Amino acid sequence: MDAVPLPPCNMVAPHPLHRILHPGSVAILGASEDPGKFGGRALRHVVQHGFAGRIVPVSPSAPTLLGHPAYARVGDAPGPIDVALLALPAPALPAALEDCGRAGVGAAVVLTADFAETGPAGAARQAELVAIARRHAMRLIGPNCLGFIAPAARLALTSSVALARGPMPEGAIGLVSQSGSLMASLISHAQDMGAGFTAAVSIGNQADLEACDFIEYFIADPATRAVCAYLEGLRDPQRFLAVARRCREARKPLLVVKAGTSEAGAAIAQSHTASLAGSHAVWEAACREHGVILLDDPESLIHCAHFLVAFGAPAADGVAALSPSGGTIAITADRIAAAGLPLAAPGPATRDRLATLFPAHRPLNPLDVGGLPREQGINGARVAFEALAADPAVGILLVVIATTPQLEAKVRLWGEAALATGKPTAILFTPGRLVDGARAQLRELGCPFTDRMDDALRVMRAALDWRRALAAARPATTVPTAFPDAASLVGELAPGRVTEPAAKALLARAGIRAPSGRLARNADDAARAASEAGFPVALKAVCRELVHKSDAGGVALGLADAAAVHDAWEKIASSVRAALPGAALDGCLVERMADGGVEMIVGARHDPQFGPVIVVGAGGILVELLRDAQTALAPVSPERARELVAELAVFPVLAGARGRPAADLTALADAIARVSWLAARLGPRLVELDINPLLATPAGVVALDARATLAPPHDTREQP
Amino acid sequence: MDAVPLPPCNMVAPHPLHRILHPGSVAILGASEDPGKFGGRALRHVVQHGFAGRIVPVSPSAPTLLGHPAYARVGDAPGPIDVALLALPAPALPAALEDCGRAGVGAAVVLTADFAETGPAGAARQAELVAIARRHAMRLIGPNCLGFIAPAARLALTSSVALARGPMPEGAIGLVSQSGSLMASLISHAQDMGAGFTAAVSIGNQADLEACDFIEYFIADPATRAVCAYLEGLRDPQRFLAVARRCREARKPLLVVKAGTSEAGAAIAQSHTASLAGSHAVWEAACREHGVILLDDPESLIHCAHFLVAFGAPAADGVAALSPSGGTIAITADRIAAAGLPLAAPGPATRDRLATLFPAHRPLNPLDVGGLPREQGINGARVAFEALAADPAVGILLVVIATTPQLEAKVRLWGEAALATGKPTAILFTPGRLVDGARAQLRELGCPFTDRMDDALRVMRAALDWRRALAAARPATTVPTAFPDAASLVGELAPGRVTEPAAKALLARAGIRAPSGRLARNADDAARAASEAGFPVALKAVCRELVHKSDAGGVALGLADAAAVHDAWEKIASSVRAALPGAALDGCLVERMADGGVEMIVGARHDPQFGPVIVVGAGGILVELLRDAQTALAPVSPERARELVAELAVFPVLAGARGRPAADLTALADAIARVSWLAARLGPRLVELDINPLLATPAGVVALDARATLAPPHDTREQP
Repeated sequence: MDAVPLPPCNMVAPHPLHRILHPGSVAILGASEDPGKFGGRALRHVVQHGFAGRIVPVSPSAPTLLGHPAYARVGDAPGPIDVALLALPAPALPAALEDCGRAGVGAAVVLTADFAETGPAGAARQAELVAIARRHAMRLIGPNCLGFIAPAARLALTSSVALARGPMPEGAIGLVSQSGSLMASLISHAQDMGAGFTAAVSIGNQADLEACDFIEYFIADPATRAVCAYLEGLRDPQRFLAVARRCREARKPLLVVKAGTSEAGAAIAQSHTASLAGSHAVWEAACREHGVILLDDPESLIHCAHFLVAFGAPAADGVAALSPSGGTIAITADRIAAAGLPLAAPGPATRDRLATLFPAHRPLNPLDVGGLPREQGINGARVAFEALAADPAVGILLVVIATTPQLEAKVRLWGEAALATGKPTAILFTPGRLVDGARAQLRELGCPFTDRMDDALRVMRAALDWRRALAAARPATTVPTAFPDAASLVGELAPGRVTEPAAKALLARAGIRAPSGRLARNADDAARAASEAGFPVALKAVCRELVHKSDAGGVALGLADAAAVHDAWEKIASSVRAALPGAALDGCLVERMADGGVEMIVGARHDPQFGPVIVVGAGGILVELLRDAQTALAPVSPERARELVAELAVFPVLAGARGRPAADLTALADAIARVSWLAARLGPRLVELDINPLLATPAGVVALDARATLAPPHDTREQP
Repeated sequence: MDAVPLPPCNMVAPHPLHRILHPGSVAILGASEDPGKFGGRALRHVVQHGFAGRIVPVSPSAPTLLGHPAYARVGDAPGPIDVALLALPAPALPAALEDCGRAGVGAAVVLTADFAETGPAGAARQAELVAIARRHAMRLIGPNCLGFIAPAARLALTSSVALARGPMPEGAIGLVSQSGSLMASLISHAQDMGAGFTAAVSIGNQADLEACDFIEYFIADPATRAVCAYLEGLRDPQRFLAVARRCREARKPLLVVKAGTSEAGAAIAQSHTASLAGSHAVWEAACREHGVILLDDPESLIHCAHFLVAFGAPAADGVAALSPSGGTIAITADRIAAAGLPLAAPGPATRDRLATLFPAHRPLNPLDVGGLPREQGINGARVAFEALAADPAVGILLVVIATTPQLEAKVRLWGEAALATGKPTAILFTPGRLVDGARAQLRELGCPFTDRMDDALRVMRAALDWRRALAAARPATTVPTAFPDAASLVGELAPGRVTEPAAKALLARAGIRAPSGRLARNADDAARAASEAGFPVALKAVCRELVHKSDAGGVALGLADAAAVHDAWEKIASSVRAALPGAALDGCLVERMADGGVEMIVGARHDPQFGPVIVVGAGGILVELLRDAQTALAPVSPERARELVAELAVFPVLAGARGRPAADLTALADAIARVSWLAARLGPRLVELDINPLLATPAGVVALDARATLAPPHDTREQP
């Protein structure tokens, strides 16, 4: 179990958001006693959940609301107000915010919608709110949010109907959500699962305070041990990566669901690299490299965070499963395999221990702990758990609960054993509410559980991701020796699409070689170039306007002699004339044919959010269809490049599957690292670069084809 | 909504299992009043759930049990006994079964474990039980089962602790499960979801009555409208396919979870075809072709069956989603896309109707129905539902419930509208138990819902599968004109591995061509063969012992002239000598080089359970790594072959992606159909056949390489 280092108790300066999440006084503007209204619900929740500070309803009419003296304006209330919640119609907001500012309110929470989310006019109204707040050094949460809860302060400063029931779930999870109703769903699931929050904040349009501000607060807050975020957009991607890094350093897992993944594929991509390393692939790569745990499902944020708070990172990669039901065991084995989780092989000590209880023919992982004589049932459940939990190969135990005699006693035993040993244990209930008694036991113990196999698998995957994140603190990537600067790399190249020879010249300066050969200006010159390079050769039209030269008949391969080169030249010239009337054919690139090896793609592009990225994958015609590719932020070290290659489906072929000679993986990794440095050095000037194919052979790698697009210097397109 | 045709009411002969599932009398052997014992729980459940027939406890000691007169032996009880449940130690079973048989008991349910599932000794004991039952014309359920429930008969004849609470969930689902505890979990989920059963039967070891017997019963039973099965093994695969066909004909969806999928990949495969069309792929193909809805998760059987009972098959393929929460809408769009479900494009009438309520900038699918003024909330929920439900492009509506004002009223409205319109509607609750009030409403209405997006996606996928199953009643596949019989196909070929020329001769007889060329016996002969075929040529060693001829240096490609052929011959001969000392080189196959086109794999094998199968996929070196392949039972028509090709990731390349010429898809489909007929004609004699690559070009298809393994005639290996 991972111990989270606590900051010293005599911490002097609290985090700037501490006053907001632990206020001494709150005001509700637009307060009423009508729970059908936003302000009515917010006031009710503040009162109902027992906020111990001062409660200041602001309302033009009523003298008291829910027993608290009400004021017509916030400035009329005595004493300082730490946080004001504004549940007012949009037109009333500017004046009310001004009032708050003048009254010295520390922060304003604006529930009202119809701002930047609706278009430019709304964005202008939103900017006005921010300007007012800034003028008074007042912070702003929202607009278009549902407020927050801070269970340690017993403060439910939210209009969300999720708070109509108590108690607020208190715990060690910090949650920040761009969606208010999603925050409410997660509060509800936390209640059901026995999980809880230090604070849960809905941030709406992030006009002032944004997700990263709260993540930073949670890093500083000693009570927060895991951070969850639901995001729709990033205000500042680089800041997000920086806070992600700091979460990992603080050993607080950062779990994120980001909406909008499905739009990534919709953009029409000009290049293979742009298609393979679309904005979602880059986001995933950035998160992976910074230790962020990405999930596809919001509710599973709570399952996974609760699990990591209870158990920390597993100490090994293997999963072991046990269940009192044989049928459940079979399904469990299938689902674990389908999810790609590694089953642990129990060691000899485990085998010996289990052999004392279970028949010799029974498989040990997953282990069916049912079918023992009644008097052995509880003991079997205990021994099975202890034996598997003590096995060093077992990082996570999955306990699948099915209906069984003595169910509640067994569940209690497993829950207590999980917490006592600290062994990460995912307990899954396959029956429904029939076994709520057993669920209640685990809730009381503080032991996490899930109700669906999908969620148990997510929890285990998240735990293994967290283990990998903690292990993956990488040394800084160092630039290859004598690597040129941007100016030397670009040389004389003009902005726009560059031809194949020019792209290969750029690669050559970065230390990546092409086949021997050169540009020829006419058929005779091509024949000479061919005999210099050595037959057989390839002949390829060079023309800036020609995007897909194969399709236009601009390529001839395997030319065995000078006569074949002459013939091919004529064919190419007439094909290109037919395909692109009036285009200038610069000549043909003549290159010695390469063969053998595996066709790869290595590319780079400049992502508007995360900067230079590279992609590496299986190349050739199937590249986009099969999408066997890995994306990473540039630059990468050769070691990291090799890891990317090892994650490809094509890797076994590179490594010498079926008796084939292995490709030179060191040379391949070096080339990938060099492309990544090329991208890093050129920054936004390198719009995109495709090497496809990069032929990986036992004797090294060679760029058979390449294309690139450059932006002018000082191009500003990287600013979104 | 699909109307299920009811059989005539004056049905004369009830199904043979009717007496078991609607008995007039039940006996419990091993009955007691101790709920800690199997027989004690079974008796208690029979009494507690109000079985209206005669209850006969059999116990050697007590005169009455739970108020019912008990008998020392079943033969002592008066009158006929329809069903006896035996909760006895294994040694007591044979005598007790004999007693039952002599007393004229109709069927015996044997709970006791430790039979065939433990090995050969247990199998022998099990066979003894079957022999006793057969002798008395008594049917047997189990052993190693947990009994059954028949809610219409108010009969809970099971020891499962799931029945400790009532009421039994009655409904239109028939369930048969090889696992007793899994049946219990599904009963619990049905209770939670408002779903129910005509009967739920745990069949254990299927010593006599097996899954197909109960599926047949459910087909005949007018009250059953969907059939669920949890299977671990099939007693008779062909019978299973036959009952699956009959389920589809009866328009009763058959939903199946089968355990053991993860073992399929573990078998070491000799050929690409065996690897790609492993036993699980064949199972999936067989189920798809017979309209079976396969699921990965047992609990989702209930979700999906409940949905199909309520709504039948959707009338269109498109999905539309709505939610009162914007954040939830974003996630919903992502999850629908990730699951590969098609979003419907709302038509003009829908757009016009929604424009009356929602701002013009709001996307219509998924549709955020939140953010309306309070007095418009309910009306907006109604209009949005009605508009999308009326759209002919929308086959399924997904309603994602998040916390929202007037939640219960909206949920009731949506549930009632779904049932009233009959539009298949998947309602998903994202909050937890906070909204149990709304769940209770839907349960009372009989409107299905789910609690997790994973399950909502499964439900929608199952509904679309069912739609496809009903649409896919295919005409019989007819044999290609003048297709040879098995004897003519095999000709003189000996059993065992056949060489490439022999495999190509087999293919030629089936109407699939190879490149021009022939077998040459020496280098001079090879040079002659090359000039007959036309340069450039390929030279390939022919030798039965040589499994991977490329790896052994047995292949030379692109030989341009006679000298190159001579050189290559010497190299191949010495490489093969070095790789396989003492092996007989039959010669080399000389073939004209083919180029262009797309490399495919087409293969066939004889599956021990389902007979001849074919596989078609992307060929070449990546074939096994990328696993872009489709499996089908053989034979297939050219139309079906074309559908299989269209499902491949490589299909866009075949169809002419990126300006490439399209392959001759008609010729490809014809070749696949011919391979399937080859497999069908040869049956178990064709152990396996790989054509890899089959080159698909604009001018037709050609088998560049092929290998096959034949079994002797009358080989019995197809019997498992």
